Amino acid sequence: MKGNVIVGQSGGPTAVINSSLAGVFKTARDRGAKTVYGMLHGIQGFLDGKVVDLSKHITSDLDIEILKRTPSSYLGSCRYKLPEVSKGNEIFEQIFARLKDLEIEYFFYIGGNDSMDTIKKLTDYAEIIGSDIKFMGVPKTIDNDLAVTDHTPGFGSAAKYIGSITKEVIRDGLVYDKANVTILEIMGRNAGWLTGAAALARGEDCEGPDMIFLPEIPVDVDEFVQKVKALQDKKNAVVVAISEGAKLPDGRYVCELSDNVDSVDAFGHKQLSGTATYLANKCARELGCKARAIEFSTLQRCASHIVSRVDITEAFQVGGAAVKAAFEGETGKMVILKRVSDDPYQCTTDIYDVHMIANVEKKVPREWINEEGTYVTQDFLNYVRPLIQAELTPIMVDGLPRHLCCEELRRG
Amino acid sequence: MKGNVIVGQSGGPTAVINSSLAGVFKTARDRGAKTVYGMLHGIQGFLDGKVVDLSKHITSDLDIEILKRTPSSYLGSCRYKLPEVSKGNEIFEQIFARLKDLEIEYFFYIGGNDSMDTIKKLTDYAEIIGSDIKFMGVPKTIDNDLAVTDHTPGFGSAAKYIGSITKEVIRDGLVYDKANVTILEIMGRNAGWLTGAAALARGEDCEGPDMIFLPEIPVDVDEFVQKVKALQDKKNAVVVAISEGAKLPDGRYVCELSDNVDSVDAFGHKQLSGTATYLANKCARELGCKARAIEFSTLQRCASHIVSRVDITEAFQVGGAAVKAAFEGETGKMVILKRVSDDPYQCTTDIYDVHMIANVEKKVPREWINEEGTYVTQDFLNYVRPLIQAELTPIMVDGLPRHLCCEELRRG
Repeated sequence: MKGNVIVGQSGGPTAVINSSLAGVFKTARDRGAKTVYGMLHGIQGFLDGKVVDLSKHITSDLDIEILKRTPSSYLGSCRYKLPEVSKGNEIFEQIFARLKDLEIEYFFYIGGNDSMDTIKKLTDYAEIIGSDIKFMGVPKTIDNDLAVTDHTPGFGSAAKYIGSITKEVIRDGLVYDKANVTILEIMGRNAGWLTGAAALARGEDCEGPDMIFLPEIPVDVDEFVQKVKALQDKKNAVVVAISEGAKLPDGRYVCELSDNVDSVDAFGHKQLSGTATYLANKCARELGCKARAIEFSTLQRCASHIVSRVDITEAFQVGGAAVKAAFEGETGKMVILKRVSDDPYQCTTDIYDVHMIANVEKKVPREWINEEGTYVTQDFLNYVRPLIQAELTPIMVDGLPRHLCCEELRRG
Repeated sequence: MKGNVIVGQSGGPTAVINSSLAGVFKTARDRGAKTVYGMLHGIQGFLDGKVVDLSKHITSDLDIEILKRTPSSYLGSCRYKLPEVSKGNEIFEQIFARLKDLEIEYFFYIGGNDSMDTIKKLTDYAEIIGSDIKFMGVPKTIDNDLAVTDHTPGFGSAAKYIGSITKEVIRDGLVYDKANVTILEIMGRNAGWLTGAAALARGEDCEGPDMIFLPEIPVDVDEFVQKVKALQDKKNAVVVAISEGAKLPDGRYVCELSDNVDSVDAFGHKQLSGTATYLANKCARELGCKARAIEFSTLQRCASHIVSRVDITEAFQVGGAAVKAAFEGETGKMVILKRVSDDPYQCTTDIYDVHMIANVEKKVPREWINEEGTYVTQDFLNYVRPLIQAELTPIMVDGLPRHLCCEELRRG
């Protein structure tokens, strides 16, 4: 018999983040945890005492299967930055008092960069006060920008969704017999992993986008329009994928040209959108052609109706691996994925010091982007392709995917 | 043995329009047609001599299966309005001369309202000049606004897609523990069938959108904001679905308030977009909360990665029924769907005079919208629910849906 466990989810959701939650829950239960608690709205909700007993929420194997296929964070999320670690800090005292009240021995946090900052700080504080609670990070982010791990759960499904709908949108652009430009705006603030995934559309039955612009390489807007014009001399339907975080040579975001930057979140990130609309309007005006912007938007992180089986399986595995490691006495670590080979694709899990991961952003290597900065290379595709393989179909009820819904979250 | 057949596609594509093409092709071939031609880019491309022999494009049963699952119009499309019918009109003379050159005996046109206008005029001209070519309309439109037919192929899949992603987006909106408003912009210029389909999301595991605004009932923007505010008193995450064609009490489109109306197509339709963005900005400003707009956009008409099996099957059937009727001597008709019962759902095909269908728009009946004009009724849902049942999974190759691609279209 093991002691009590608590698990939370933080940061932007993914289509498979609940598969990791299922992995933590099932593995903890199977390995003898006493009670598996869930915190609502991450560490912020925990501070407000929002805790549920997960065994009352997940009551059968079917619940586990539905939970895996439920998009968005089942337990809710937060964007809450813990203060710097110092002895006697009030916030940490509150957190550890609550952990003591609930007799928590193992703490799991499913999230990205910012969430690993939370695990790091809690680990450091535990060391200062001599607490022996084990803190483990479970990686998730569609952005694939976590350091050390080969890739992050959530990315493969987002890439599969982006590749699939890019193909569909490209076909849609072919129907009319006149010049038209389609600009796809894809998520990714500083790292171009998701935008690069649009290149997956290229194959025997599809040319893929004509150009791809990642945030790693600055974009000159006038050159952009000239490149579109050059493509139009060869074909009617031009399709360009660009990251929401694409930057100008002067360092500003492209979308800042369109006055659409409104607010800043708790981690100081600007809210980005409007890049594609700005560029489409510019192309329409300067090239005199029909141009449309398509924001792939929120669906990139919640389209659980088309997930990668590789991804959703790995998401479950990292949850399980975190529990196993913590139960064996590890703390202050994040589970990482280690790729053994590309073809056949083989991947194992390991654990790694969270201090080396928190707040570090992994970008697309320069050599995986072509020299002109307008496409990703074959090496990029060889890296991504295995992560989008196979499907896990939704459980359909009366024509629509069925989800597991947290009543406490619903009531707000 | 029958004579030559030609088929074209026109207007906006759907996720299953190629299933109708497959239905026309396979039925015509099976029933002994000599050659089945396809016109590229509809009647406009036909006038330019853009004709292909479809048996060189669809060479196996697997091709037919892939074609059915290929989004967007395989043969391309056009928005071309034929002139009024008069003897000696140059355009009609050209068309009939080309039809004679190709020895066409049967002409099929897959499309919506505007495309049925084309079938009507060609039939009328044929009568004037005594041509015995048979002209048949095959219904398609995601908008479901064709008269006489119970519903149109393409609508069921779009409704299934909208219902599915509405659920996913609603779950996404629940994750943060603070007031937020999500405005979903859904296609539909004058008829609210698609926007109403967002209500499908409501069920045991999801509350569905909080309000739904169709183009049939004018929206007062200030009242809209007040209604959102009233909902915010009860819950954190408010989700509203609104049609891109939502109108103000003075008859203008809501999106005209945002200066986003840019151009007008050949049929005089304004290009609409910006409704959700305008309203989200207004809510953010006046209610001081986080508000986001999500345009479901082009994917509504091309998301073949999640189609309704009922819909894709019916799309195939109406193609086949058109061929059967024409081969039996019918002309100037459109195939219609006749619902025999809701539960169990049973539906048959019939044919109907295209003159009664062309240019008529079928709207959502007033009694299927609640009195306040903010939701659809149970009768609406009973009507739509059978049309989204079951799936036809894509044929996946290397992680992505495989499509059949028309090389001539690709070259532009």
